[in-house]
Amino acid sequence: MAIECGCKENITGVCAPKGFIASGVHAGLKKAKKDVTVIFSETPAAAAGVFTQNAVKAAPVIVNMEHLKKTAGHARAIVVNSAVANACTGKRGLEDAREMAALSGELLGIPKEEVLVASTGVIGVTLPMDKIQKGIEDACSKLSKTGGLAAAEGIMTTDTVPKEETVIVDLDGKTVTLGGIAKGSGMIHPNMATMLGFITTDAAISSKVLQHALREVVNETFNMISVDGDTSTNDMVLVLANGAAGNSPVEMEGPTYEKFKEALYEICKSLAKKIVEDGEGVTKVLEVEVKNAATSEDARKAARKVTESNLVKTAIFGEDANWGRVIMAVGNSGANFDPDKVDVFLESDWGREQMMEAGMGLNFSEEKAAEILKEKEIKIVIDLHDGTYSAKAWGCDLSYEYVRINADYRS
Amino acid sequence: MAIECGCKENITGVCAPKGFIASGVHAGLKKAKKDVTVIFSETPAAAAGVFTQNAVKAAPVIVNMEHLKKTAGHARAIVVNSAVANACTGKRGLEDAREMAALSGELLGIPKEEVLVASTGVIGVTLPMDKIQKGIEDACSKLSKTGGLAAAEGIMTTDTVPKEETVIVDLDGKTVTLGGIAKGSGMIHPNMATMLGFITTDAAISSKVLQHALREVVNETFNMISVDGDTSTNDMVLVLANGAAGNSPVEMEGPTYEKFKEALYEICKSLAKKIVEDGEGVTKVLEVEVKNAATSEDARKAARKVTESNLVKTAIFGEDANWGRVIMAVGNSGANFDPDKVDVFLESDWGREQMMEAGMGLNFSEEKAAEILKEKEIKIVIDLHDGTYSAKAWGCDLSYEYVRINADYRS
Repeated sequence: MAIECGCKENITGVCAPKGFIASGVHAGLKKAKKDVTVIFSETPAAAAGVFTQNAVKAAPVIVNMEHLKKTAGHARAIVVNSAVANACTGKRGLEDAREMAALSGELLGIPKEEVLVASTGVIGVTLPMDKIQKGIEDACSKLSKTGGLAAAEGIMTTDTVPKEETVIVDLDGKTVTLGGIAKGSGMIHPNMATMLGFITTDAAISSKVLQHALREVVNETFNMISVDGDTSTNDMVLVLANGAAGNSPVEMEGPTYEKFKEALYEICKSLAKKIVEDGEGVTKVLEVEVKNAATSEDARKAARKVTESNLVKTAIFGEDANWGRVIMAVGNSGANFDPDKVDVFLESDWGREQMMEAGMGLNFSEEKAAEILKEKEIKIVIDLHDGTYSAKAWGCDLSYEYVRINADYRS
Repeated sequence: MAIECGCKENITGVCAPKGFIASGVHAGLKKAKKDVTVIFSETPAAAAGVFTQNAVKAAPVIVNMEHLKKTAGHARAIVVNSAVANACTGKRGLEDAREMAALSGELLGIPKEEVLVASTGVIGVTLPMDKIQKGIEDACSKLSKTGGLAAAEGIMTTDTVPKEETVIVDLDGKTVTLGGIAKGSGMIHPNMATMLGFITTDAAISSKVLQHALREVVNETFNMISVDGDTSTNDMVLVLANGAAGNSPVEMEGPTYEKFKEALYEICKSLAKKIVEDGEGVTKVLEVEVKNAATSEDARKAARKVTESNLVKTAIFGEDANWGRVIMAVGNSGANFDPDKVDVFLESDWGREQMMEAGMGLNFSEEKAAEILKEKEIKIVIDLHDGTYSAKAWGCDLSYEYVRINADYRS
């Protein structure tokens, strides 16, 4: 079915690890662009998934949770459509999601439970199954080692660029590759928000260890980004690991686990940041680092809340050194801290300026702050002086363009 | 000090109840507009207050909590400045807030602990105490029965209109009046967000009963409005009750308490809605009613979350019947409910259309929905079919103008 292409430069994203092929095709759900993606492991693979925490879960989310349970964490294919979310579609929606898996399983010669499915797009509309069927047939026939970019394109909605990443790591003398694609844009928020991330790796690792690593990494990466503070019904991050690299299976503890987790963190962080950078109407990317919190959870809560505040986001858009809104957001975060100890710094490639010391505003240089804020990537550092835990969160500004896009787009 | 003016039409807001006088003056904190307000009860009064839940509390919030504790809930004056929030100002800020109370107490001939203080405006800047002192002297000399409107003007920041309300209720054959002023605009959100509300009443009621009623009512009114989801460091709602109406003191239980609470609810709801209507860049006001929730808290959580969602807000701005975003927000609210039971309706003065039934999208009329959404006041009704509790929340759309105002304004 797949032909190993010699030209390495075209073997990207989910196709980079050994034994994975992919494709993306136009099935007519979108007017002209690719809208069906298939990712396939040529050999059996362990699988792990993290899903939306929205109480309203789309049909593919429910079906994947069932499949991963039935197979005890094994899957060989991921089949995705964009344009229609298959959320709030009742029994018919569940049947359609199961049909997507069954059709694909038949074409790929694997049990339907080893197919994971995903949808993204408009809520409350049922899938046009005739188009989906043709799309899946077409995509399965086009699976190839050079299909990574097409696969990344097939899952896009309001994304303006496809998002791919590859990370290579040495595990016990074996070269292990991780490849990934993601989509997001609007409705991106902690706890898996209209965001799809699919990662492949040729590492040998059990489903249990993979699931553990994925949960830890997603909490520090995909769950720490925010575009507009809403969490969708369809979000998921899936990983398939087929062991083709030939390393000794990664165990739950020890340096090899840490090394694998670090690689998984790198690919997830990179994909998550690509989502923020391509957020709807984004003109500036914001990194918020909270240092010296009493607990890890306090650090995470505080960092996330600052990236979520509309007042902070509009200030960043307006290039206004409005540190009062930063401390206001930290105060609203639910994190425990002593307001009289807090330092706040503003940073970018241009330089660094302290805004607040020990809970009080400083007479800082507005000119320096203005120069810092002219950059595209802005960093806010908040030192709570209250412990030893740190966290980072990534967000963006809130622009006129965000409002324009979201006033028009039917999600 | 005060002259009872015969012309009833000028006796408004906080001056409407017997025995209350007020003033608002320009002290030079703003360029030209009024920026210092004083409200005064000519006789002793019970007092109650509800304050911001932001962990970072401005100096006046801390001072008021101290004063209400020391006096066991008694106060005769409220002294407010706008333009500077006196937040994140450390010890100096606390000293300044105490000095505002001491100055006013001296001029009004009451203990400084019977003066409650409030500030609103830029965070992290210390108060210009020379201007504040002159402003307080000027305002105390101008206290009058016709000063209600000036008092409402003196507390404004980005508000475009002063906000006043009066409610009259019969308690045991006595006419009891409640009068109030409020400010808000941006940064308005559940849990007291850059929002000041000051209510006077000539009801006879103990501080304990008043505090109980206020807490209940604020949770259903001021805490159920959202402009941008952020909660400020300075918010408070204060009530003074001087008993001049001559009713028998309102007791904790029974029909008189309920009647008083209803009146307090009406004035708080009206002021809260005025804040939303005057929200920054607001073109449409949104009321969200959640019906038949399993608990009161579930209803409140769900209703609030829908008014807070940027995606719902931009859809309302764009007049798009995007019910998928509504159910997405309910799903994110933390409320317990069964997604397969939910009905969603869109309403306005033009008409009503059902969008969703039993968790599934309906093939509704886009034309009718478009007509409904052309109105200025939009209502979303969400029936959870899961119990008997209901809640209402009020919010607004998210417009280009909101972004423009908040990209420029240093809060």
